[in-house]
Amino acid sequence: MNRKRIRDYGITIGSLPPGKRNTITDIPGVTVGHCTIDTPRHKTGVTVILPSPENIFQNKLPASAYVLNGFGKTAGLLQVQELGTLESPIALTNTLNVGLVQDALVEYMVNRCKKEEVQLKSFNPVVGECNDSSLNDICDRAVKQEHVFSAIKTASEDFDQGDVGAGKGTICFGFKGGIGSASRVIPIDGQDYHLGVLVQSNFGRTGDLMVNGFPLGQKTEKEIEAAREDKGSIVSVIATDLPLSSRQLHRVLKRVCIGLGRTGSHIGNGSGDIMIGFSTACTLPFDSEESFHNVKILNESKMDLAFRAVIEAEEEAVLNSMVAADTVIGYKGEARLGLLPYLERYLDLIK
Amino acid sequence: MNRKRIRDYGITIGSLPPGKRNTITDIPGVTVGHCTIDTPRHKTGVTVILPSPENIFQNKLPASAYVLNGFGKTAGLLQVQELGTLESPIALTNTLNVGLVQDALVEYMVNRCKKEEVQLKSFNPVVGECNDSSLNDICDRAVKQEHVFSAIKTASEDFDQGDVGAGKGTICFGFKGGIGSASRVIPIDGQDYHLGVLVQSNFGRTGDLMVNGFPLGQKTEKEIEAAREDKGSIVSVIATDLPLSSRQLHRVLKRVCIGLGRTGSHIGNGSGDIMIGFSTACTLPFDSEESFHNVKILNESKMDLAFRAVIEAEEEAVLNSMVAADTVIGYKGEARLGLLPYLERYLDLIK
Amino acid sequence: MNRKRIRDYGITIGSLPPGKRNTITDIPGVTVGHCTIDTPRHKTGVTVILPSPENIFQNKLPASAYVLNGFGKTAGLLQVQELGTLESPIALTNTLNVGLVQDALVEYMVNRCKKEEVQLKSFNPVVGECNDSSLNDICDRAVKQEHVFSAIKTASEDFDQGDVGAGKGTICFGFKGGIGSASRVIPIDGQDYHLGVLVQSNFGRTGDLMVNGFPLGQKTEKEIEAAREDKGSIVSVIATDLPLSSRQLHRVLKRVCIGLGRTGSHIGNGSGDIMIGFSTACTLPFDSEESFHNVKILNESKMDLAFRAVIEAEEEAVLNSMVAADTVIGYKGEARLGLLPYLERYLDLIK
Amino acid sequence: MNRKRIRDYGITIGSLPPGKRNTITDIPGVTVGHCTIDTPRHKTGVTVILPSPENIFQNKLPASAYVLNGFGKTAGLLQVQELGTLESPIALTNTLNVGLVQDALVEYMVNRCKKEEVQLKSFNPVVGECNDSSLNDICDRAVKQEHVFSAIKTASEDFDQGDVGAGKGTICFGFKGGIGSASRVIPIDGQDYHLGVLVQSNFGRTGDLMVNGFPLGQKTEKEIEAAREDKGSIVSVIATDLPLSSRQLHRVLKRVCIGLGRTGSHIGNGSGDIMIGFSTACTLPFDSEESFHNVKILNESKMDLAFRAVIEAEEEAVLNSMVAADTVIGYKGEARLGLLPYLERYLDLIK
Repeated sequence: MNRKRIRDYGITIGSLPPGKRNTITDIPGVTVGHCTIDTPRHKTGVTVILPSPENIFQNKLPASAYVLNGFGKTAGLLQVQELGTLESPIALTNTLNVGLVQDALVEYMVNRCKKEEVQLKSFNPVVGECNDSSLNDICDRAVKQEHVFSAIKTASEDFDQGDVGAGKGTICFGFKGGIGSASRVIPIDGQDYHLGVLVQSNFGRTGDLMVNGFPLGQKTEKEIEAAREDKGSIVSVIATDLPLSSRQLHRVLKRVCIGLGRTGSHIGNGSGDIMIGFSTACTLPFDSEESFHNVKILNESKMDLAFRAVIEAEEEAVLNSMVAADTVIGYKGEARLGLLPYLERYLDLIK
Repeated sequence: MNRKRIRDYGITIGSLPPGKRNTITDIPGVTVGHCTIDTPRHKTGVTVILPSPENIFQNKLPASAYVLNGFGKTAGLLQVQELGTLESPIALTNTLNVGLVQDALVEYMVNRCKKEEVQLKSFNPVVGECNDSSLNDICDRAVKQEHVFSAIKTASEDFDQGDVGAGKGTICFGFKGGIGSASRVIPIDGQDYHLGVLVQSNFGRTGDLMVNGFPLGQKTEKEIEAAREDKGSIVSVIATDLPLSSRQLHRVLKRVCIGLGRTGSHIGNGSGDIMIGFSTACTLPFDSEESFHNVKILNESKMDLAFRAVIEAEEEAVLNSMVAADTVIGYKGEARLGLLPYLERYLDLIK
Repeated sequence: MNRKRIRDYGITIGSLPPGKRNTITDIPGVTVGHCTIDTPRHKTGVTVILPSPENIFQNKLPASAYVLNGFGKTAGLLQVQELGTLESPIALTNTLNVGLVQDALVEYMVNRCKKEEVQLKSFNPVVGECNDSSLNDICDRAVKQEHVFSAIKTASEDFDQGDVGAGKGTICFGFKGGIGSASRVIPIDGQDYHLGVLVQSNFGRTGDLMVNGFPLGQKTEKEIEAAREDKGSIVSVIATDLPLSSRQLHRVLKRVCIGLGRTGSHIGNGSGDIMIGFSTACTLPFDSEESFHNVKILNESKMDLAFRAVIEAEEEAVLNSMVAADTVIGYKGEARLGLLPYLERYLDLIK
Repeated sequence: MNRKRIRDYGITIGSLPPGKRNTITDIPGVTVGHCTIDTPRHKTGVTVILPSPENIFQNKLPASAYVLNGFGKTAGLLQVQELGTLESPIALTNTLNVGLVQDALVEYMVNRCKKEEVQLKSFNPVVGECNDSSLNDICDRAVKQEHVFSAIKTASEDFDQGDVGAGKGTICFGFKGGIGSASRVIPIDGQDYHLGVLVQSNFGRTGDLMVNGFPLGQKTEKEIEAAREDKGSIVSVIATDLPLSSRQLHRVLKRVCIGLGRTGSHIGNGSGDIMIGFSTACTLPFDSEESFHNVKILNESKMDLAFRAVIEAEEEAVLNSMVAADTVIGYKGEARLGLLPYLERYLDLIK
């Protein structure tokens, strides 16, 4: 696996500075874990974003969701949209294992709450998905509860990108896609805030791929087994330590499409393009007895910085998901090539 | 005009206590003004709700809108929904004068801001409407700018209900409808909060009318020129001094339908059923230089009181719009009877 | 179990005639199956609505969904809303088993498609839920895959109502709730169309219960262990053989709240109030090669009949869910009483 | 005024072929008219899109609307979204004249229907807007009814682009913006369908401007009075003769953002980014007595062509709005330069 990112090749997306790690874990408290299933027949897995080291069911976070194209099976969005809060880790997996992964998150949270003597009677797990059925024998439904638990257990600030976890079997612009991440720093009143993105990339027609404005897809589509349709999906998870309300987060999520479009997406009919976002700036305690909460939120007229940050980080996260991925051979012998050699060939023109 | 309300006849809707005036002006700062156009040919007018004595463009309020049925021409909702703020008085009028009334609100606010040396370059007027074309020669478009200015100028905490202002020509369950209002008191932590409703009622099939659960419509539909279809519209304006976020206000507005349904509405195809709500608990200053705002909001688990309040006040406001209305003869000679004599006949059964 | 319905006691809800069975299975092709889990510790189960005898994945139906209050975990709505089609049976269960039931529906459809040589790579299961944790030890998560398969296998036009299937452990207005159904006939151009409702009822404060306008809750709340809050949820499944587009179905679903409100609901904060609807009037074949479809849809100005039908059927379905239910003793010894004896006491006043 | 378009300079956006005129009037029946107000103090006007030569109130068209960012005052969208139909010409103007232009459209349609003996009692005018207050003394509210009537009267298949009509005073990426248009041909089953876009462009930060992937904004921002914020708005009107349902049109409108993003938009906080679309493939007759309509709609799995067409046409329409515009000097002496000389300087790099 390539541990380098698009930025390590001298390609700078946008104008805002990235965070220290240039990943979603630049937001303090956020960790990411993978469990990868890599057998001749199965190229799939689970990726988990833990929004906080605390028990998030007990310490909910302001959150929102936006559905750019709903040809997808993402679970848990109704309650996030209604209440404006997230009370679960966010898990990503393949299309036909969403139910199982939800069930595993329930099991995890029931057990954790029992141990911590928190009364849980209801719980809203959030699970996103992409369809990895070209490389993975998806009807076999390889993901099991243990894989979810393993991804949670190994979550850390330092995590791999590319063909790992829920990104093991995905395809992006005909190349190997996967998990990618990036972040931006937003300075306000002398303090640094952060906004990070993690994507599970599985979309795009080869001829449409653009890298920093350069039409790499057109240059390469005759050399590889090109994707001829904009199929698949993309799930984008957005985290920030900016104090944003649920409504403001929703506005941020609606801008993600701009970053996607710059990589060449046409938001195809068959694509589930889903955005989920949360802020770690305050916690909403479960079963609080107080009648009122005091909440700090960003002045609406300062939102543009957050909009720019999410657009840049989304574009870079998608590119990272491809640059970090190695070639993967699917269960029917189909090879999806890592982007890196093709990128390197045109580096001078892209930079 | 009957100055009595449904409650003055011993009919108590729901269980929460009403405010002092039992109108939307129980919310401190809110005032209401009418301008009624009553000629042989025209039965129409303007009703204005001023959310605050301040210049609301400069001191915006948290707000939301909900469209139960969008067969209507209400203006200004897009920005209210996006930004979660109200920056305009709310005006009500007839369907074909919405544009003119919007234009008049712009004129009003441009002039006010010029006088107060507030820089205005953009402004989002909010105007609701009902179709009063049965009684009013609507294509004549009788409302003029001066009527809007007059309604604003005369706004006060004490205002008429029934066949006045924008309610002069509306019909409700085949009886004369119009402007109605009601309020509820919500005690929290030893303090009294208020939620008030003002409606412009113009909907309902006679046979469906229910008063406090009593099928008054079935009892009377053979005696009057009954409305056979659930046509027309209802615009509901909700004000509260509870500290609610825009998202919470949206949840309150979605409950208004329950109060409507209890009067007998079936939310007909041709009905514009629109809810607009705002909270006076905080103001969001225009052109504030601060990066962050501190906002107080209600604990989500306490929302049920606000839900109950809005449902009860909506039901009572619709009934008040009818009880307060006198019979009106339309421009084609059609008489729409005041409900009161029919109500009085069945009082013992209704109470 | 009481096989009588509210109508068998002489109580007529609304004015439209019910269908032959007065259930959702009056829509030709629709069947319903239950699997009930009834042990000292578990009062829960699964109810499945099969929209068609065909393989629905291959023969999708026009569909829509509406979220009145999103404090719920219903799965599958995103894709229904985006594409306007249903491709799955609809299953109902308890809150913490949604993931497992989804997973079981995937297993069911993967196997069925394999057998029928239909290529399935993606599948959108639809699962609704209520929280039965007062009577059922919900954290034990009693529902297993076999229960889902059993509910599907036993689906028929004739099915039980009350404390069965996914309604075994639910509570409605402090009485025993459960599964209820009702239907209406809509004659157009000399042909009879049908609209049916099936609910899983689990909401309401005792004092709010109204039966056909009669305040039965107020009369009885001192005699039973009353529900003091409007908690829980209600999932409403709507089927019709009227040719409605997805947009038109959405408009029908938005009227369901009126029927709910007439039973006394206040759409409490903690309630997941979800509506899912489909039309059997046409099928949209999977992988059709045709560029265009010819579709028949209802003239928009005739929608009022469908609106009235859904409002009446919803009110009656909720009442049936209670009338049909026997008393159930929960795992902590809590008894939730069947409504019938209380209803019978006031029958003369209600009729 | 420059009558050349971006394509005339050898710049080809995307891969689909444009229509004969490469404007929205490639859709048979669609015409466009302008009325430009150009005085020292006023740089504003009205642009009208007539969707059909028929009386559109009597012959409604399938339509939809999408609000990408609702900081805008566009009128008429509620009913378009609810009923899925358009019954009005679409007019564009400046922010503070929306009400007046609505009122003029009502006047126009009332008079037309009177003349044609069509009974009009309700009417839903659609009006979009951009804020031209940098160049135009907007508080003066220069647009009058006669300007609207004049724009309607002069509507034709052949119309100007750039600094005309409602685009006279708008600014795009710091250069002069205005009205732009483009179209694409979509061949299906041997027949050519068309999709056209018309924009009123008024957004963007100079440094963000990209032309066909080339960062022209970065190259030029030091030479001109650059726009430092992504303010303003963009209204996009989409027409097609493809048989699309309202739901399908909505999906098309959600893709417009991709085209916008490729020109460099970040969808700023203060921007009203609104999309309105209609299909001319069928008409829905007003007051039809038929119970059912037979409608032809595109197979959902063929939507990708329409998505690609709208993305390409949007990008090209924005660029055309700038290329066609001459320099305009505002009422305070501020000059907004036409893009053309800057474009020509970098032509070799852009092509």
